Amino acid sequence: MVTTSEPGTVSPDRLLPADPTTRAIARELLTCVEDLPIVSPHGHVSASVIADDEPFADPARLLVTPDHYVTRLLHANGASLAALGVGNADADPRAIWRAFCAAWPVFDGTASANWLVSELADLFDVREVPSRESADRLYERIAARLGEPALRPRALVQSFAVEVLATTDDPLDDLAAHHRLAADPTFTARVLPTFRPDAYVDAATPDFADRVDRLIAQAGEGRSGYDGYLTALRGRRQHFLEAGGTAADHGVRAPRSLKLEAPAAARLFDRVRRGGATQDDRDAFEAHMLYEMARMSVEDGLVMAIHPGSLRNYDPDTYARYGPDTGHDIPVPVEFATGLRPLLADFGNAPGFHVVLFTLDESTFSRELAPLAGFYRGVYLGSPWWFLDAPDAMLRFRAAVTETTGFSRYGGFVDDTRAFCSIPARHNVARRVEASFLARLVAEHRLTLTRAREIIVDVIDAAPRRAFKL
Amino acid sequence: MVTTSEPGTVSPDRLLPADPTTRAIARELLTCVEDLPIVSPHGHVSASVIADDEPFADPARLLVTPDHYVTRLLHANGASLAALGVGNADADPRAIWRAFCAAWPVFDGTASANWLVSELADLFDVREVPSRESADRLYERIAARLGEPALRPRALVQSFAVEVLATTDDPLDDLAAHHRLAADPTFTARVLPTFRPDAYVDAATPDFADRVDRLIAQAGEGRSGYDGYLTALRGRRQHFLEAGGTAADHGVRAPRSLKLEAPAAARLFDRVRRGGATQDDRDAFEAHMLYEMARMSVEDGLVMAIHPGSLRNYDPDTYARYGPDTGHDIPVPVEFATGLRPLLADFGNAPGFHVVLFTLDESTFSRELAPLAGFYRGVYLGSPWWFLDAPDAMLRFRAAVTETTGFSRYGGFVDDTRAFCSIPARHNVARRVEASFLARLVAEHRLTLTRAREIIVDVIDAAPRRAFKL
Amino acid sequence: MVTTSEPGTVSPDRLLPADPTTRAIARELLTCVEDLPIVSPHGHVSASVIADDEPFADPARLLVTPDHYVTRLLHANGASLAALGVGNADADPRAIWRAFCAAWPVFDGTASANWLVSELADLFDVREVPSRESADRLYERIAARLGEPALRPRALVQSFAVEVLATTDDPLDDLAAHHRLAADPTFTARVLPTFRPDAYVDAATPDFADRVDRLIAQAGEGRSGYDGYLTALRGRRQHFLEAGGTAADHGVRAPRSLKLEAPAAARLFDRVRRGGATQDDRDAFEAHMLYEMARMSVEDGLVMAIHPGSLRNYDPDTYARYGPDTGHDIPVPVEFATGLRPLLADFGNAPGFHVVLFTLDESTFSRELAPLAGFYRGVYLGSPWWFLDAPDAMLRFRAAVTETTGFSRYGGFVDDTRAFCSIPARHNVARRVEASFLARLVAEHRLTLTRAREIIVDVIDAAPRRAFKL
Repeated sequence: MVTTSEPGTVSPDRLLPADPTTRAIARELLTCVEDLPIVSPHGHVSASVIADDEPFADPARLLVTPDHYVTRLLHANGASLAALGVGNADADPRAIWRAFCAAWPVFDGTASANWLVSELADLFDVREVPSRESADRLYERIAARLGEPALRPRALVQSFAVEVLATTDDPLDDLAAHHRLAADPTFTARVLPTFRPDAYVDAATPDFADRVDRLIAQAGEGRSGYDGYLTALRGRRQHFLEAGGTAADHGVRAPRSLKLEAPAAARLFDRVRRGGATQDDRDAFEAHMLYEMARMSVEDGLVMAIHPGSLRNYDPDTYARYGPDTGHDIPVPVEFATGLRPLLADFGNAPGFHVVLFTLDESTFSRELAPLAGFYRGVYLGSPWWFLDAPDAMLRFRAAVTETTGFSRYGGFVDDTRAFCSIPARHNVARRVEASFLARLVAEHRLTLTRAREIIVDVIDAAPRRAFKL
Repeated sequence: MVTTSEPGTVSPDRLLPADPTTRAIARELLTCVEDLPIVSPHGHVSASVIADDEPFADPARLLVTPDHYVTRLLHANGASLAALGVGNADADPRAIWRAFCAAWPVFDGTASANWLVSELADLFDVREVPSRESADRLYERIAARLGEPALRPRALVQSFAVEVLATTDDPLDDLAAHHRLAADPTFTARVLPTFRPDAYVDAATPDFADRVDRLIAQAGEGRSGYDGYLTALRGRRQHFLEAGGTAADHGVRAPRSLKLEAPAAARLFDRVRRGGATQDDRDAFEAHMLYEMARMSVEDGLVMAIHPGSLRNYDPDTYARYGPDTGHDIPVPVEFATGLRPLLADFGNAPGFHVVLFTLDESTFSRELAPLAGFYRGVYLGSPWWFLDAPDAMLRFRAAVTETTGFSRYGGFVDDTRAFCSIPARHNVARRVEASFLARLVAEHRLTLTRAREIIVDVIDAAPRRAFKL
Repeated sequence: MVTTSEPGTVSPDRLLPADPTTRAIARELLTCVEDLPIVSPHGHVSASVIADDEPFADPARLLVTPDHYVTRLLHANGASLAALGVGNADADPRAIWRAFCAAWPVFDGTASANWLVSELADLFDVREVPSRESADRLYERIAARLGEPALRPRALVQSFAVEVLATTDDPLDDLAAHHRLAADPTFTARVLPTFRPDAYVDAATPDFADRVDRLIAQAGEGRSGYDGYLTALRGRRQHFLEAGGTAADHGVRAPRSLKLEAPAAARLFDRVRRGGATQDDRDAFEAHMLYEMARMSVEDGLVMAIHPGSLRNYDPDTYARYGPDTGHDIPVPVEFATGLRPLLADFGNAPGFHVVLFTLDESTFSRELAPLAGFYRGVYLGSPWWFLDAPDAMLRFRAAVTETTGFSRYGGFVDDTRAFCSIPARHNVARRVEASFLARLVAEHRLTLTRAREIIVDVIDAAPRRAFKL
């Protein structure tokens, strides 16, 4: 009586609500957006991977090692990161793959399982469940195909129907890979850089002073100190704008802004740059620079994206051995209203200013983010991010913000991924979630089906273009 | 196959859950309360509007300008508040109305859309969707009816089946409008004043010292300083009680209480009244006065309602130009347990003491509010408020508090509105939400239908009377 | 058309979702676990009650007085705790029972109503709703059966199919009751002690210095001061291990850890033990001792369970009159990431170290707990606890953590109860909730039914054994 999918199959109704009326509406809404191109305004795929267009090395390096959603849960269940190839180029890819397949059941119910099942089916026509038993067979099958031209990065970007893909880049990056891609007439996707100045603002970054000095030396136009620093940041933002960039991304610990007068800011800069500043000094500098970069955004038009509230590199031992982005960044409570007040008071309604607010703390959805985005012209709601980038969490986001702000203040879905092949799966999940949410509103007579059809297209396609100025 | 409402129609099943079994139960429960009179224990409609009984000026001044839920979202989407008539009596009502209708899609999915569609249909028989195209037509149709006797304030209050409507009033208000209404034998609704002392407690209020001086001069019975201040507050509370008032409302920043001995309190009062007190002093004074007014509530029986956690007048430029209550009050995290402990320790179980706790921070529903209301005899759960006054948020409230406290500790639905015509729509939504929640419990065999029928009547009708002593 | 249960009946579908497809799957999943033995790794039933095996005194003393979930809500609705027998051995059990039955409607919708209906039906075959009218009849019926051998504690433990039942015990407990039970060859359940050192760590405990002195005197092996204190704690942990204990439980105010070097820790211990230490000192000592006991857990293998974030004995008057655990412990916001960092940095991935993190603050589910458990090998997700130990809250927990961590990091259901007879009802509810959650994932094609069948067995049966080393 109970009909469910067989292992490994990808149901056309996956993620849609069980109630038959609602599901039928969701299906209909999904057809409005399922084939739209992908607009990805924020992510961590490297432009040079696409520009170089080398075949992917092996299944493990493609699907396991670079995906810290995957490696972290394998680690929690006993694997060592080194054995998964993290920071370890010598690890045997077959061994990595076997460890991954054998541990497959730990992913049941996770967002990652969802994405991986889609990737295996859609890219490699693999519909078998990974397991200790199937590991070698799947490895052969995937590895055999990685040499195919259709599975090289540029071809994949195009077959994914990616129209825009934003990368995240160091301010001193020459953006050569972006220029190479733009110069390829056969490659139609727009791969755009995003200005990410965190390492030049957060004094806890290793070699912070050296970085700052290098920034000023390269782009300070001969000025020094705080003046050279601001000049260099402005200059590099211009460099990103010229390469097609539309956004600056800020991974601050706290969404805190502070307006200092120039002399006080210059003294603070000197203390922080020299090292030995207190934590309070460093926090104040980060908060002041968030304010200053909002001012720059008003001037030069770069959209400001704020991704706050993660305690990065939480585990000191893992950080020492494997470096950053290895699965142990842990969220903390955040508070937007008080922290962003100086910035929003001065720039929140400024013409052309856009700030997209992301959060890892769900309690801020209805408490602060919807109220802010429902008043300030410049504030857009970032899509559920990172640990919240999953169907149930995305539905909670929608339910929490829509009653206050409707759909017009949404910043568009952001896949935020380093896992290149998961991009279409992630966008597909977002489309299914929007269809499910809207279908419920239609089924509950809170919205007409006609409007829901228009809204889902707006949310999926127009929203990221609008918020990120694409 | 998918049947949904046509644009602008108001389905009898709106907001009810899609599952057919649950919906059938919800429908049945709704019939138990749909026609009950409206008991509105807290709101912001002005008594003089009802007492003066002037026809409403025009559609824009009735439905758009005074509703900051509406103007704020129009502002976020580009309208200027001045162009919407906020603080601008000269704005052309037709232009306001056109701007509103043209932007109608931004309200899709919001609580406001829900209320507005009901208002247009129920009051003006308008079932057409507002749009740029329909704007003038709808304006004419509504404007033509505003002169009808049935659409004047007193007639509307009666046709809304309002039995009790509480207003929110300045302590020095003479309550003449309330007395005029009470003296009208043809007007059967009880319009009751609510004592709102915020402007005499929060030293950030403009002209705070003048206000306090005026309070003491008018009602201090010849005493001065802190003694005169307390005397005046007590006297004015008596004045409200004599006019039928049953509650005092406290819009404090934080739900914090502090017990100071009289000499220390008097010194603090002097510092705060003189101006130049520190923020800590002002916070301590507010916390102490919350404690003192709980003591007064124990003495005189006024129900204490606490509406904390909003950073009011967030945007300084908007505040300077348009004043308070113009759509930019932003919630912040709140913490009830530690903050209210002194107050609850001394008065929480005192005979006759009632305190209704509201919140804009959903994380407090299950963490603090349900546990407090499930122990203290005096603590009642305020209904979801302001940004949370919408179907999904109300269901989250119910799901978060009911498993700990059941239904007996509920303070009753509060429409909290300045938008006069939205009152019946808001109460109708609350009834539909309660029916939906209870229907789920019945469908999941967690409650009998017999009890659910009794509970919905208790929740809608008896709860506000009980908590607010009506 | 609407079919619902009659009053007092216990539907086989209770708590299962209303959607027919999802319910059918849930029913099928429930059959996989409904008859599994009970593994209860944390609770507050006293071992001596079972060892002594005296018949329960009367219905009130069995079902009302010891259950602070019940007495607190009766208190909120006007009953005095003394009249309910709390701290009052003289209270007439019939009067208590009548008060309880008369107030029965206040429990509608609560977790307690759920449990109580099951207990009455399953233990006493009572299917009538408690009411003022039925009170005496039910009392007679239950009282008449309390003398039966089948209703004495040991028989009940066995008929409940309890395989493991952990108690919570003072470090100086001789564990004689546990030894008596272990020595009974006819009693097959394992009743295991849990080491709960709070009263020897939290200096706010009455007679703190005396307790600490007694601890050192009894188990310090002749050492004194901080050295004797640590020696005694280590020794008593060993005593618990020898009696079959597998866990230590820490009911700290905040989940905060602090690593102090031994000399600084010894000085802090002296200050705190002498009395007169500041609150900061006492907090630092608690945080340091949490760190030290994690170190001990690494050494001796006791699982660490942390139950933080309750402001205990909130109401001073009630505490003075009735003592602790009388229904007025109130949760406060907690923050795990920053607070536990020193502990997790040093021990979070240590071989064999297990820490099960519980919370009363739902905002931490997705923000901190799932991210921590999804990286650290030693971190397990505690089941929803106390005020969150109810169907809707449990579903929120699952929805909040599963997308990040799947099911593998779950610590197993914990009934945490003092209400002996509610144990099977509570575990049954947990099974129904897991079936409901998994059924939704299956119905939404997020999981196969085959895997859901395996997962529910793992979650119910294997998870608590794994996390608590049973």
